[in-house]
Amino acid sequence: MFLKNAWYVACTPDEIAEKPLGRQICNERMVFYRGKDGVVAALEDFCPHRGAPLSLGWVEQGELMCGYHGLRMNPDGTCSSMVGQRVRAFPSIRSFPVVERYGFIWVWPGDAELADPAKIHHLAWAEDPAWAYGGGLYHINCDFRLMIDNLMDLTHETYVHATSIGQAEIEEAPPATRTIGDEVVTSRYMHNIKPPPFWAAALRGNGLADDVLCDRWQICRFTPPSHILIEVGVAHAGKGGYDAPPEFKASSIVVDFLTPETETSMWYFWGMARNFKPEDAQLTASIREGQGKIFAEDLAMLEAQQRNLSENPDRKLLKLNIDSGGVQSREVLERLVAAEAAERAKRMAASVGARATQAAAG
Amino acid sequence: MFLKNAWYVACTPDEIAEKPLGRQICNERMVFYRGKDGVVAALEDFCPHRGAPLSLGWVEQGELMCGYHGLRMNPDGTCSSMVGQRVRAFPSIRSFPVVERYGFIWVWPGDAELADPAKIHHLAWAEDPAWAYGGGLYHINCDFRLMIDNLMDLTHETYVHATSIGQAEIEEAPPATRTIGDEVVTSRYMHNIKPPPFWAAALRGNGLADDVLCDRWQICRFTPPSHILIEVGVAHAGKGGYDAPPEFKASSIVVDFLTPETETSMWYFWGMARNFKPEDAQLTASIREGQGKIFAEDLAMLEAQQRNLSENPDRKLLKLNIDSGGVQSREVLERLVAAEAAERAKRMAASVGARATQAAAG
Amino acid sequence: MFLKNAWYVACTPDEIAEKPLGRQICNERMVFYRGKDGVVAALEDFCPHRGAPLSLGWVEQGELMCGYHGLRMNPDGTCSSMVGQRVRAFPSIRSFPVVERYGFIWVWPGDAELADPAKIHHLAWAEDPAWAYGGGLYHINCDFRLMIDNLMDLTHETYVHATSIGQAEIEEAPPATRTIGDEVVTSRYMHNIKPPPFWAAALRGNGLADDVLCDRWQICRFTPPSHILIEVGVAHAGKGGYDAPPEFKASSIVVDFLTPETETSMWYFWGMARNFKPEDAQLTASIREGQGKIFAEDLAMLEAQQRNLSENPDRKLLKLNIDSGGVQSREVLERLVAAEAAERAKRMAASVGARATQAAAG
Repeated sequence: MFLKNAWYVACTPDEIAEKPLGRQICNERMVFYRGKDGVVAALEDFCPHRGAPLSLGWVEQGELMCGYHGLRMNPDGTCSSMVGQRVRAFPSIRSFPVVERYGFIWVWPGDAELADPAKIHHLAWAEDPAWAYGGGLYHINCDFRLMIDNLMDLTHETYVHATSIGQAEIEEAPPATRTIGDEVVTSRYMHNIKPPPFWAAALRGNGLADDVLCDRWQICRFTPPSHILIEVGVAHAGKGGYDAPPEFKASSIVVDFLTPETETSMWYFWGMARNFKPEDAQLTASIREGQGKIFAEDLAMLEAQQRNLSENPDRKLLKLNIDSGGVQSREVLERLVAAEAAERAKRMAASVGARATQAAAG
Repeated sequence: MFLKNAWYVACTPDEIAEKPLGRQICNERMVFYRGKDGVVAALEDFCPHRGAPLSLGWVEQGELMCGYHGLRMNPDGTCSSMVGQRVRAFPSIRSFPVVERYGFIWVWPGDAELADPAKIHHLAWAEDPAWAYGGGLYHINCDFRLMIDNLMDLTHETYVHATSIGQAEIEEAPPATRTIGDEVVTSRYMHNIKPPPFWAAALRGNGLADDVLCDRWQICRFTPPSHILIEVGVAHAGKGGYDAPPEFKASSIVVDFLTPETETSMWYFWGMARNFKPEDAQLTASIREGQGKIFAEDLAMLEAQQRNLSENPDRKLLKLNIDSGGVQSREVLERLVAAEAAERAKRMAASVGARATQAAAG
Repeated sequence: MFLKNAWYVACTPDEIAEKPLGRQICNERMVFYRGKDGVVAALEDFCPHRGAPLSLGWVEQGELMCGYHGLRMNPDGTCSSMVGQRVRAFPSIRSFPVVERYGFIWVWPGDAELADPAKIHHLAWAEDPAWAYGGGLYHINCDFRLMIDNLMDLTHETYVHATSIGQAEIEEAPPATRTIGDEVVTSRYMHNIKPPPFWAAALRGNGLADDVLCDRWQICRFTPPSHILIEVGVAHAGKGGYDAPPEFKASSIVVDFLTPETETSMWYFWGMARNFKPEDAQLTASIREGQGKIFAEDLAMLEAQQRNLSENPDRKLLKLNIDSGGVQSREVLERLVAAEAAERAKRMAASVGARATQAAAG
């Protein structure tokens, strides 16, 4: 069961630049497009005329038009026009609250009246010119919570990413995990280590020596419904570690937006935000390429794990200290999903009560 | 539920020229082959010996032979011979009434005793040397009735085929639809229009000016179980339109035989019959190529529509005036399917009654 | 239902030379690897930590290590170690009895306490330097019993392998089939025939004339759970046939180990053992290539037959004299599967009784 009353990253602007985009999110098939005045809209991907996917159509004069028989839609899901037809009595389709912010399109798959753009995860770096961002998108055939587990326990880097960011010292440094409200933080600090290849390159990219011992940190923050931002970095040893002055460290934020497609598939928006050399587009491209290769290493493992778990649905897994990040994140999610269900039941009861009162008075 | 007591196009002669052809029609797996004296036969695609598909075998001395262990079949579904075996007591398999006519192989998937070749759709042009025909075959993953809807409402040409036969004037001309017995006719007439690219080429191919205003017509005729023949053409404006003398018009018949494979897949035999320059094989080839490209544009839309409808089985679709052709065709089909079921029930009751009378008398 | 208490060929040593091998056998997902001192082990392909397939990991210092978070396994299914963790209380996973013998890895998917290596099919030729062996592996989407039928009735060679080992004389020679204990033998003898292409080449390879009439034999032996070894050969006519002295014949053993993957898929280990020119590696390679091509001809037929049977589960097939080999082999299998179920029920009752006695005494 997904948290429906929440903002998920749906796509990036380039994906809707040329034509509408069909994408399934939390089991809902949606079509995203840029309509009048460039405002993004999201509708059910189902033409009310004959059921064709609207994502096979195109945008004409700011209106989404079905590519089968030309029915034009308004961004609120009502029909706008159709040649030779009066559309006033046509049934509407569902429209989804959608906001373009921080370089992403965010969608709210739940109750539209509860959608508050102020609840979109605040990304300070996305609006700060001192920072640069690069990222990509992968489709993975696994429950998005397996990716939460993955990202909230970086022990796996030692094995899955042995040749890039993994190193034995990661698993030797036990993580500390805590839940603060709806946020879960799991952090690891390593001292006097040799920087692994990815970080040696980052130090060089940042104009720093890469052949000295370093301190390294990983601070993973989960926030609902499925965002994980990880502060990562290295500093020359003895300069203060995480708190070292900028001239001794290379650091960045690993950005992970996990958007469920179905119960066993997901869209993985990954990227890195950095506050050094933000104007260096070539550096952005090379970091993106390196990160893309590393993150692709997780895919086969996650899909094989999903297959094993689907075949063994009742089998209990271990919950070790290293798994606390994932375990606590899932607990937060379960609590919020339960609250959402309770809230929905309450509103339904209230609405039934109101109608009963009205009827009695009428 | 398919209409079973009806003639469907099963294949074309070239498909059985080299070896037997396995094809599923109305959920029945069949094998088609050319047996003794070149007569076409259709059997269940299931060897009574060990269940291998007979379509993997070959024809030897006019008999279909299983490619696994060599059982030879008669065209009536009885076993003919097998080396070292007495086949008299072998179980028979089902044989299907089949007729070769008009350049197609026609099959009757229902009760064999009701199969009357006289009921095969009469195609006058197929036997008239003044006409030429060219066509092809597509496999589509959709309910064949979605293709009936498609062909009985050519509004979609404006959108799906915007660059070839589509033009805004089509949807601006409201169609007139009527059911006459079991036939449904939906027709559209456009006046003083610029001929779209396909028709401009046809005018030129016919030795006529293509840069003058024209009248255009589309008369779609549905006949059960799933044949749609569409009279289409353009005439220089003011010369009588549909009734203009031959020297002012280019016209033809779009031929569509829709053969269900399963509930959600079909074989689409498409083609064009024309009564100008019938001897021009190059023109036949170029029309066939153009038509093939245009008709391929429908495939992605129909398969995506099918996926949407399969996921939303209870959702009501709109039935606009432009949809009347499809709606009325489906009504004819439903009426005939119900009649077929009633007829079958009646025959079963009669047969039970006859046996009871016999038993009482015995 | 598979016979579980039996030795199946799981893989060949080259398949685990570089890394662990994941393979499903009798519905069980297993991982095979070479551990300490080169001893082969087989475990469930499911890491007790988070369910990742262990086959995506690697072997380190003789221990199988999960490639996700580094849990190390012992060959008995207990956990050996994990960095930063005490694994003593970790749950074990299932380990499967496994033996390397005759150039194959053999696995016992049933009750481990019943696994007796002495029950592995004895292959005298595999340990005799006068013999050479070459073979390969195919994956086929069919019930392994369809392959038993195939190999226990070589009539199909006349049709499926018409251009290599098939010839009309095969089906003209009726086979004799008998069950001896758990073994089924079906044999065919042909006299004064022209050797087919494969055997003509074998005669030449053996330094014998290939343009003379020959006697030919095929003696298929089925032993449970799914091994079929076929003595095949040709001798110059009139020299004693099967019993002819070596200088007049070319003979070999076709080796077929059928390992069920699921109810409708299997691993097919095929090969040929010969006792002529055993040192000639090029001959081994060329026989292997030829046999590989011939055996590949069965795949399409078997998969199509499986599809037909899956669609028609209740349809009775014929059981002719030529089918006796398959029929009797299946009868042996059914008898053993029933015995295995009865044995298991008996042991469970005994164990319940023992506990009851203990409880009463306690």
